[in-house]
Amino acid sequence: MALTGVLRPGHTQIRVLDLEASVDFYTNTVGLVETGRDKAGRVYLKAWDERDHHSIILRRAERPGTDFYGLKVLDKRTLDKLESDLRAYGVATERWGAGELLETGERVRFEAPTGHLFELYAEKTEVGDGLGYVNPDILIEDRKGISPIRLDHWQIHGGDLDGSRNLFVDVLGFTLTERILAEDGKTDMAVWLTCSNKAHDIAFVRDERNDTSHHAAFLIETWEKLLYAADLLAKRRVTIDIGPLRHGITRGTTIYFFDPSGNRLETFCGGYSFYPDMKPYTWTWDQIGSAIFYHTRELNERFLTVVT
Amino acid sequence: MALTGVLRPGHTQIRVLDLEASVDFYTNTVGLVETGRDKAGRVYLKAWDERDHHSIILRRAERPGTDFYGLKVLDKRTLDKLESDLRAYGVATERWGAGELLETGERVRFEAPTGHLFELYAEKTEVGDGLGYVNPDILIEDRKGISPIRLDHWQIHGGDLDGSRNLFVDVLGFTLTERILAEDGKTDMAVWLTCSNKAHDIAFVRDERNDTSHHAAFLIETWEKLLYAADLLAKRRVTIDIGPLRHGITRGTTIYFFDPSGNRLETFCGGYSFYPDMKPYTWTWDQIGSAIFYHTRELNERFLTVVT
Amino acid sequence: MALTGVLRPGHTQIRVLDLEASVDFYTNTVGLVETGRDKAGRVYLKAWDERDHHSIILRRAERPGTDFYGLKVLDKRTLDKLESDLRAYGVATERWGAGELLETGERVRFEAPTGHLFELYAEKTEVGDGLGYVNPDILIEDRKGISPIRLDHWQIHGGDLDGSRNLFVDVLGFTLTERILAEDGKTDMAVWLTCSNKAHDIAFVRDERNDTSHHAAFLIETWEKLLYAADLLAKRRVTIDIGPLRHGITRGTTIYFFDPSGNRLETFCGGYSFYPDMKPYTWTWDQIGSAIFYHTRELNERFLTVVT
Amino acid sequence: MALTGVLRPGHTQIRVLDLEASVDFYTNTVGLVETGRDKAGRVYLKAWDERDHHSIILRRAERPGTDFYGLKVLDKRTLDKLESDLRAYGVATERWGAGELLETGERVRFEAPTGHLFELYAEKTEVGDGLGYVNPDILIEDRKGISPIRLDHWQIHGGDLDGSRNLFVDVLGFTLTERILAEDGKTDMAVWLTCSNKAHDIAFVRDERNDTSHHAAFLIETWEKLLYAADLLAKRRVTIDIGPLRHGITRGTTIYFFDPSGNRLETFCGGYSFYPDMKPYTWTWDQIGSAIFYHTRELNERFLTVVT
Repeated sequence: MALTGVLRPGHTQIRVLDLEASVDFYTNTVGLVETGRDKAGRVYLKAWDERDHHSIILRRAERPGTDFYGLKVLDKRTLDKLESDLRAYGVATERWGAGELLETGERVRFEAPTGHLFELYAEKTEVGDGLGYVNPDILIEDRKGISPIRLDHWQIHGGDLDGSRNLFVDVLGFTLTERILAEDGKTDMAVWLTCSNKAHDIAFVRDERNDTSHHAAFLIETWEKLLYAADLLAKRRVTIDIGPLRHGITRGTTIYFFDPSGNRLETFCGGYSFYPDMKPYTWTWDQIGSAIFYHTRELNERFLTVVT
Repeated sequence: MALTGVLRPGHTQIRVLDLEASVDFYTNTVGLVETGRDKAGRVYLKAWDERDHHSIILRRAERPGTDFYGLKVLDKRTLDKLESDLRAYGVATERWGAGELLETGERVRFEAPTGHLFELYAEKTEVGDGLGYVNPDILIEDRKGISPIRLDHWQIHGGDLDGSRNLFVDVLGFTLTERILAEDGKTDMAVWLTCSNKAHDIAFVRDERNDTSHHAAFLIETWEKLLYAADLLAKRRVTIDIGPLRHGITRGTTIYFFDPSGNRLETFCGGYSFYPDMKPYTWTWDQIGSAIFYHTRELNERFLTVVT
Repeated sequence: MALTGVLRPGHTQIRVLDLEASVDFYTNTVGLVETGRDKAGRVYLKAWDERDHHSIILRRAERPGTDFYGLKVLDKRTLDKLESDLRAYGVATERWGAGELLETGERVRFEAPTGHLFELYAEKTEVGDGLGYVNPDILIEDRKGISPIRLDHWQIHGGDLDGSRNLFVDVLGFTLTERILAEDGKTDMAVWLTCSNKAHDIAFVRDERNDTSHHAAFLIETWEKLLYAADLLAKRRVTIDIGPLRHGITRGTTIYFFDPSGNRLETFCGGYSFYPDMKPYTWTWDQIGSAIFYHTRELNERFLTVVT
Repeated sequence: MALTGVLRPGHTQIRVLDLEASVDFYTNTVGLVETGRDKAGRVYLKAWDERDHHSIILRRAERPGTDFYGLKVLDKRTLDKLESDLRAYGVATERWGAGELLETGERVRFEAPTGHLFELYAEKTEVGDGLGYVNPDILIEDRKGISPIRLDHWQIHGGDLDGSRNLFVDVLGFTLTERILAEDGKTDMAVWLTCSNKAHDIAFVRDERNDTSHHAAFLIETWEKLLYAADLLAKRRVTIDIGPLRHGITRGTTIYFFDPSGNRLETFCGGYSFYPDMKPYTWTWDQIGSAIFYHTRELNERFLTVVT
């Protein structure tokens, strides 16, 4: 099989201050669909075109942030293999039983060198996107809010960027697609990694604040739908961090905004297709403005400093 | 590595009746870039964002059609492995030396059960897309004509569809994404296969005319650029077969048109992302109209009958 | 005042066979808003961004078609002036009292030489588009169906095209923007007329079937929304006559489809801006294909023959 | 005739510091077409779809800014009438002879209360847009740079906003479409005026700096082309003031950027259609952020302070 190993970002558990206000925001403004709640009070959501049971889990907490990041792998055999590979690499793993997350099989959890908790899993109940599998239609009506396609990628921060980068490349089979070098021209300040044809599935940024999240990103179909997203966010008085604009990195277009708890979210569109025979792009420190915000070539303070 | 084996459709050699008229068409109307000519008189072209030396080879001949279909594989080790797998599966292979195609390494050639000549290769000179790899810009100016992103996929016809489908799935690692069933509800009349995140990299249609091509497709960025493609083709009095329209299959949007020799080409945009944990879609015979042309739900005679 | 006289197509009364099925179609699929019903059982609708009470009136009848075409004029003084001008031109007029149509002032009705009933009116209750007039937002949420901006124009057929053209140009102040000439190179077979900056507010086609309608058109914001319209119509199994495509005439993009009674409707997007210092375009008979359907350069039989 | 009087912004003479660098910028980056040079060394340009000889005149000078603003009127009779109306209103007018501007007839010049020089003219040589008037095509190939449709509107600043507003409404037939009120809830701080179906043809902003220009705007077809404009400007390292974004006022989308001399230009897309029977929108002082930059609801210092 041509696409194997780790398939994609599968789910992420986000801490929110007010659960019901957040459910309202993630369903009516972001436009996800609620698919379940568990005994612990967590709320499960999915984007409309995702076929698995959920991609976002909301947990009420005293401070915003992300509890853990889930990666879907091809099958149980792959899960066992990667667990074994992680251990061989010197990473402690913990196996969580099926069902601890709703409709989800066993998970292999480990801590990345940047302090983030990741988990691999091979099984999650397929609930479909409503189009069916026989003579499917091509659209779902009455999508609410921004209504992205899927959870797309994460940008997360921590000190040992080299450690996390190496772990993802050497053990989990990710490929480096882009990097920003420090002023010394050698040190990676940020790296973009893919496990698929996407320009990125995850990005790590060097930051002394371990285990922090810059944003989780949702995929949007078109630049016009990005405009609608910005219009809708503005109409509902949601704080837009920046956008719509173009990234130099990935060539994608984007809006960044904040959920009611202060977690930054991205609606992302486009980006080139990546294949593992391609060279990565390198950005030098003096061009970081163009790398991130291609049009203005200037970063804003909030984008640089706020993580959760 | 998460993406391995066969990476993508890499090149295709198309027969044209008038070489210079065809070069003019493929460069100025389709908007490919000429990258070389060889001693045999063949002309090599690439789409602007392809990094390898070429994806289209034009050969002058007395009748239109396609000589062979090239699949890029991850590396030389993969090439050897797939050659060995093909032989083990009972498929005769022939190894062609590096350089027979310009800037291309060794190729492993075989005939698929539907009569088409395929070849695998691991090496082709990387010429880049002009953006560079250090602080790249995000656009190339002065693109001509339609200017697609890349060669995207093929639809080809032959009698032993089952044989080709099995070969691509069992040996080459492709995954079935969609199928049209015959009236008996069992026989595949057409299958769509992927070796990546794309909704299709190749489609086989059951047709008694072995070794024929329905179309080669180029990827277009947006629905608005598809409109420009249709406008430009119309302005230049190119015969548009059909479109712009939506496919039920892949959910992509499209225009079909003919090159001056009568080879059908497609400009394709969109389509869902596929992962190997997803179920394929099945279309029943009575819904073939919606499957192919979602809006009108009716096929046209020319689309059904003309192959080269 | 720079824009005076006749302002725009203001309303049209359409005959439908099944009233409730039609209301469902015009509200949920076309996406108009029902604004009232009168004692005669007629249903009034408006497009979301129209500020006046209604633009479409549905009347149950035994056969499809259009009862009359209403043109909004600047003010009561203009209404009186145009009534007087019409009479001076030899056209009989009839004044209908305020309130015969819901929320509508006095109407001056006359028959055009092509047999169509027109009416001028200066007053209709302003109900707004829901955005308000103080610190308005820029979008309405929960728009249903295609949800056009407004009633845009009509194409209507009749024998004495010259008579109607002259009446609209000489008395009502319209300007010719485009024409199709007959094979003789002299006779107008079709004319496009504007009373504003639009490329057309009305088109007359020479046709022995007097007092017939080819289509009423609604304005759509973008080519991407046109695609959504086509997708939605197809999903709901509405008969699409043709499209999405580009017109040579007006340069607009379009889809034609039929309401449940067989009345043809158009969703129209774009078109150039016209000013009265511009020359009209002329299309010769042999280029009628490009004039109407720019991409295919071929008319279809149904488009040519079906009127109501 | 329904559209009479003042038709549209017809030309504007912009002061530039380095003539040839500016011609390069306005042709290759903005994408206008040079149509002539006069004895005074001025360079004349037009947007591709404008049919008259020019809309932008560049004059070399020591400081940036705008010399005068030209309004095209319907015909010579209108020119005479408006000249007479202006005088009757107490405005001094000066008639400039035909030919002083290339290919342009007589101009009636006057100073608006905000200190800006305006001129009315009825005649300018029609050079066409290259599509022709018989069986026209719908696109011009090889458009360069941003390649807007036309000069669209101006935003200009001066102290006696009330005077200019009244002059344009009472004498020139413009209609108020939107206004921003000062904190007192009574004083107009800015007004948007139209002489057509456009949401604005000119805007006046109250500012003690008389006879200053905030920007001249060009019309762009689509939001996607606005993205291309931003990408191209960024690639060429042109200073983008802000955008792409949505205006609350007019609902249009936009990018602001600077020419090499520091004159601010806008690429504008969309905006609602206005008719003189519509009520104007009013924005209160506390909502000025949403009025101007709908998404962020915050103005930037540069946008507020830089005029030329």
